[in-house]
Amino acid sequence: MNRANHPGVFITFEGGEAVGKSTQIARLAATLRQQGHTIVLTREPGGTPGAESLRALMLDPATSLAPLADTLLVFAARADHVETLIRPALARGAIVLCDRFTDSTMAYQGHGLGVEPATIATLATLIGLTPDLTLILDAPPEIAATRLAARFAAHSGRPDRYERFDAGFAARIAAGFRAIAAADPARCALIDATGSIDSIAATIAATVTARLA
Amino acid sequence: MNRANHPGVFITFEGGEAVGKSTQIARLAATLRQQGHTIVLTREPGGTPGAESLRALMLDPATSLAPLADTLLVFAARADHVETLIRPALARGAIVLCDRFTDSTMAYQGHGLGVEPATIATLATLIGLTPDLTLILDAPPEIAATRLAARFAAHSGRPDRYERFDAGFAARIAAGFRAIAAADPARCALIDATGSIDSIAATIAATVTARLA
Repeated sequence: MNRANHPGVFITFEGGEAVGKSTQIARLAATLRQQGHTIVLTREPGGTPGAESLRALMLDPATSLAPLADTLLVFAARADHVETLIRPALARGAIVLCDRFTDSTMAYQGHGLGVEPATIATLATLIGLTPDLTLILDAPPEIAATRLAARFAAHSGRPDRYERFDAGFAARIAAGFRAIAAADPARCALIDATGSIDSIAATIAATVTARLA
Repeated sequence: MNRANHPGVFITFEGGEAVGKSTQIARLAATLRQQGHTIVLTREPGGTPGAESLRALMLDPATSLAPLADTLLVFAARADHVETLIRPALARGAIVLCDRFTDSTMAYQGHGLGVEPATIATLATLIGLTPDLTLILDAPPEIAATRLAARFAAHSGRPDRYERFDAGFAARIAAGFRAIAAADPARCALIDATGSIDSIAATIAATVTARLA
């Protein structure tokens, strides 16, 4: 793993909707805590009070923003999250596990909504923090669609602004994440997310252990 | 005036707090309408439903964001405003009068809060729209402070997040705007805002007429 100039480790989880990120991030946190590591669990968009208030606006189906505005809003939340929470935790030597980061912006706003990849790359440079390891959970969009339907049925919830996008959008997101993994194999590990929760957790734990070594 | 590739004219009003921008922009709009021009009056942050919801968050004294996050949020609002309202109006041939634009970001977030000018310039390039003419209203911070105090007394209002900054901040903003005017005289006109409303309005009308010619 390419280590940045801080004593901590920054690991991000990426993937489309309902691909199992929340479950797997909690499993990895438990495993790493058992091994004695200090873990900081966080998510994007959000993670700090300022970024969470931006998240609420971002996911509200009533919010209407041009694609570039949407992207800049995502990076505003990220800037606060990185500056206020992630960098200080890494400086203290923690392992930071973050549910979504810049690759989600490239997949959703870039591959999904057509924002220029160069624009997203420029904004990422302004933030200036790259994950040490990115776990990209990969499942066919049909599986995610089935899981999403079950989630809404269980919680009587209504879909947020991203979950409302159609199947073609979900397929572009999944393809986008695969392209990101292929383009940066030193940082990214593509994880097959179609197996059992236990088997996926074992694969992730083995990947992290190997890369932390 | 350097005309961009649209039939309209984009004029921005800049300056510190309580320097008289709202009064003067309304006066100029009336004058230009009498001359037969189609005028679109707008303001930043805001101007569109999406940007106004970001504005509310931005000016709320309860909002706490790192300086770079604050800057990205301002540009998110700007991206929506430019794409949804300003560009379409310019394409229709309107004169767009906008209360604050990128120079305010350079003055407040750059000179005032210490965000790198290069970062703000990079974000401005992503937006990709430069005013044809910028009127920078200039008054000593003491005058603005007196006007602000009168405004709060009259409206029983409480100051927003920018109005709460101290006198040193106001002085840095005023100096920032003067530096911006000096650096780009082809685009910017520095207007002495210490005279009567009528005399300032006459100066602004003469400046706009000369540059529109």
